[in-house]
Amino acid sequence: MKTDKGLLVDLYELTMAAAYFEHRVDCRATFELFVRHLPAQRTYLVAAGLHSALSYLENLHFTDDDVDFLRAQPAFHTVSPEFFDYLRGFRFQGDVRAIAEGTLVFADEPLLQVTAPVLEAQIAETYLLSVIHHETLVASKAARVVRAAAGRPVLEFGTRRAHGPEAGVRAARAACVGGCSATSNVLAGALYDLPLAGTAAHSWTQVFRDERRSFEALLETFPDTAILLVDTYDPLEGARIAATLGTEVPGVRLDSGDMLEKSRLVREILDRHGRRSTKIVASGDLNEYRIEDLIAQGAPIDSFGVGTDLVTSRDVPALSVVYKLVETEHAGVVEPKTKFSEEKVYWPGRKQVFRFFQNGKYHHDLLACAEEGYPGASTLLEPVMRAGRRLSPGPPVKEIREHTLANLNCLPEAYQALHDAPAYPVEKSTALDSLLNAVRLQHRLGAAVAKASLQAGGIES
Amino acid sequence: MKTDKGLLVDLYELTMAAAYFEHRVDCRATFELFVRHLPAQRTYLVAAGLHSALSYLENLHFTDDDVDFLRAQPAFHTVSPEFFDYLRGFRFQGDVRAIAEGTLVFADEPLLQVTAPVLEAQIAETYLLSVIHHETLVASKAARVVRAAAGRPVLEFGTRRAHGPEAGVRAARAACVGGCSATSNVLAGALYDLPLAGTAAHSWTQVFRDERRSFEALLETFPDTAILLVDTYDPLEGARIAATLGTEVPGVRLDSGDMLEKSRLVREILDRHGRRSTKIVASGDLNEYRIEDLIAQGAPIDSFGVGTDLVTSRDVPALSVVYKLVETEHAGVVEPKTKFSEEKVYWPGRKQVFRFFQNGKYHHDLLACAEEGYPGASTLLEPVMRAGRRLSPGPPVKEIREHTLANLNCLPEAYQALHDAPAYPVEKSTALDSLLNAVRLQHRLGAAVAKASLQAGGIES
Repeated sequence: MKTDKGLLVDLYELTMAAAYFEHRVDCRATFELFVRHLPAQRTYLVAAGLHSALSYLENLHFTDDDVDFLRAQPAFHTVSPEFFDYLRGFRFQGDVRAIAEGTLVFADEPLLQVTAPVLEAQIAETYLLSVIHHETLVASKAARVVRAAAGRPVLEFGTRRAHGPEAGVRAARAACVGGCSATSNVLAGALYDLPLAGTAAHSWTQVFRDERRSFEALLETFPDTAILLVDTYDPLEGARIAATLGTEVPGVRLDSGDMLEKSRLVREILDRHGRRSTKIVASGDLNEYRIEDLIAQGAPIDSFGVGTDLVTSRDVPALSVVYKLVETEHAGVVEPKTKFSEEKVYWPGRKQVFRFFQNGKYHHDLLACAEEGYPGASTLLEPVMRAGRRLSPGPPVKEIREHTLANLNCLPEAYQALHDAPAYPVEKSTALDSLLNAVRLQHRLGAAVAKASLQAGGIES
Repeated sequence: MKTDKGLLVDLYELTMAAAYFEHRVDCRATFELFVRHLPAQRTYLVAAGLHSALSYLENLHFTDDDVDFLRAQPAFHTVSPEFFDYLRGFRFQGDVRAIAEGTLVFADEPLLQVTAPVLEAQIAETYLLSVIHHETLVASKAARVVRAAAGRPVLEFGTRRAHGPEAGVRAARAACVGGCSATSNVLAGALYDLPLAGTAAHSWTQVFRDERRSFEALLETFPDTAILLVDTYDPLEGARIAATLGTEVPGVRLDSGDMLEKSRLVREILDRHGRRSTKIVASGDLNEYRIEDLIAQGAPIDSFGVGTDLVTSRDVPALSVVYKLVETEHAGVVEPKTKFSEEKVYWPGRKQVFRFFQNGKYHHDLLACAEEGYPGASTLLEPVMRAGRRLSPGPPVKEIREHTLANLNCLPEAYQALHDAPAYPVEKSTALDSLLNAVRLQHRLGAAVAKASLQAGGIES
């Protein structure tokens, strides 16, 4: 995945960059990336996308063509040549702290904390939001599906319905971060060393004159791994054909109809013919709710292929993720920042997330100022980049997946229910609360002073 | 957007390819890509993604690294070396017919019809589905939003919440195909010559000591284009400050709160200070329904910035899009294909879509066999690629957008209602119906013959 596209930003990041440059606004700024609210269908999120975010920051630059394109934009004709020279040499040189991929996060908790010259931190906004949002969205959905499957492997099959093929690659990785066992996306497998899985399509069977010959041919080429899709014409007849082939059959797939009834009948047919080791894979518009039902009813399904609902996070295709300025620092003066427009206030200042345990399980989180300390609690935000360089290449996805599963083991069951789960408690520290009040008061005073001076100057408001 | 990633496919396309190769299955196959059902919230789709699809087919190949990766996969250890040699020289050499981008399409109508050696047509499945699905999804949502805006420009602002940054680029193009006037995505603008739009973020204002100074600074750099975001602290106070600056103000943006009330008050403030030419841009979780309400209530908003709901097609984040084998041809023998598993039957054979008009408006469509003719009706599927080469580079997005808007003008109003619109009639020809019955009958006969010969052979089923 190429991650060095300087122009892959919202225009306003670059207009603001130009205006910061022209006005020599060079304070150091800290932005935090967080989700404002969890939707009713999500009681936790699985952090993901950090690898993409850091690769981007390390490689971010503008080619001569990029700069020429910008310079030719009508909006930029008032910008000085020095800005374009600056862009040509641009590299991100900031510091980043982040919550590790695979860690569970909740509303208001910063997944990423970027501290850099304001211009650099600003330019990165669009891309950082986009990758952290998307990958966290899919990893979080995957964790629910994997939980519903209760130990049976979940295979990610969704690239064809993802939001474009590149989203399919990202979703495949995120699905494995969230606990899936394998993906059908070959490029994702190659890029991230993920186990690959696949079966056959209806077209394979249709091309042959009869179903039996199509099954035999697939098994001749892939004797150890072929999964026969048995529902092109009639799933029970297909299963009978599969069960009476002259060779071992690794597995069959069902992709339509009443999965509970069909899987039972197919299992019976296979067993009756002594095919006890032949696995049944189910696919076709599956999600955590349908899988939960199938398992509750004892469907003899060995693994689930999940596509559309997983890779688009269909019930929650977007989160209220934002990237907000929380602090500026100039000549040693630190100023915490927030905004006060309706319902959009957020916690100012650089923060840390403290996670408290009880009997080896998560008990509650505390969102606090970065410099606070709470012995016994884990701190979730850790340094991952300094002066534009990653501190480590990051763990392989297989390791992140283990981290996710270990995390989920620590989250009390109640918070993991697929329906009507209570909200996990995220408290705010007294110091953070005081800081918000102080910033609010200071802003009101500042506004009053500004207004008074304006009126003294004779301009009617 | 790089579109030559050979490995960006589902594993099963490549395992089937290997098995086709090993068994010398080299019939010519026709696959059609269509949407099975329209969801309740969509009464039409705007075709999009063809440009991406054809670029992919023209560039599709496997690098040596790709081939080495595949060869090292455990599943492929039973595949002969000749297949990997074949992959090294692989190019798509098929023919494609398609419905033009910007044309309105309905359930069952093939957006794309691929005719090629079965192996080539099969390998392309995943990517073709992915781009046509995603871009059609977003273009269709965009058309609804643009309609709701009733002539006021809609600006696409969604990359940060798209499913990854590349999905943001694709969504930006698709949004303009669907009728949006501009995008904030700079790369999409550069790649597809789209108008760019942008404003400023809250962080811009927050970095400055006071709001007035932040506005002045932005206007100094961008006197002709700056849009001031006035709701960082208090939108009415922000508007008052904007209205009392010493210079012209191109526009202000509101991003939170009750947009109807706020836009009216802001308009009053601007007008009271003689700023009648200052435009109001609204943004913040907008979609076609909210925009329709705002306009019905007379909100004085000049343009709408729409992000999340547009680029994720939030109410319908996926369509039931499929790529199905409809015909094979070998040594002059043509065989129409379908499948018969529950609810998944589809229309066999190569098809054409005929669109009938009445008084300059669309009256109904007819899905028919490719060789049928209906004088007076338009045919929607046209040749776009022959022997792997595009017949034309395709029209620029600005032209496609005009085509979309002209198409929408021809769709009777009733079908465009945002709520409870009736279904546009898509009929099936008698010939097509007969073909389905014939294929079904032939399959039953074939199955009976196969069963009889099996029983004669003494194998119990």
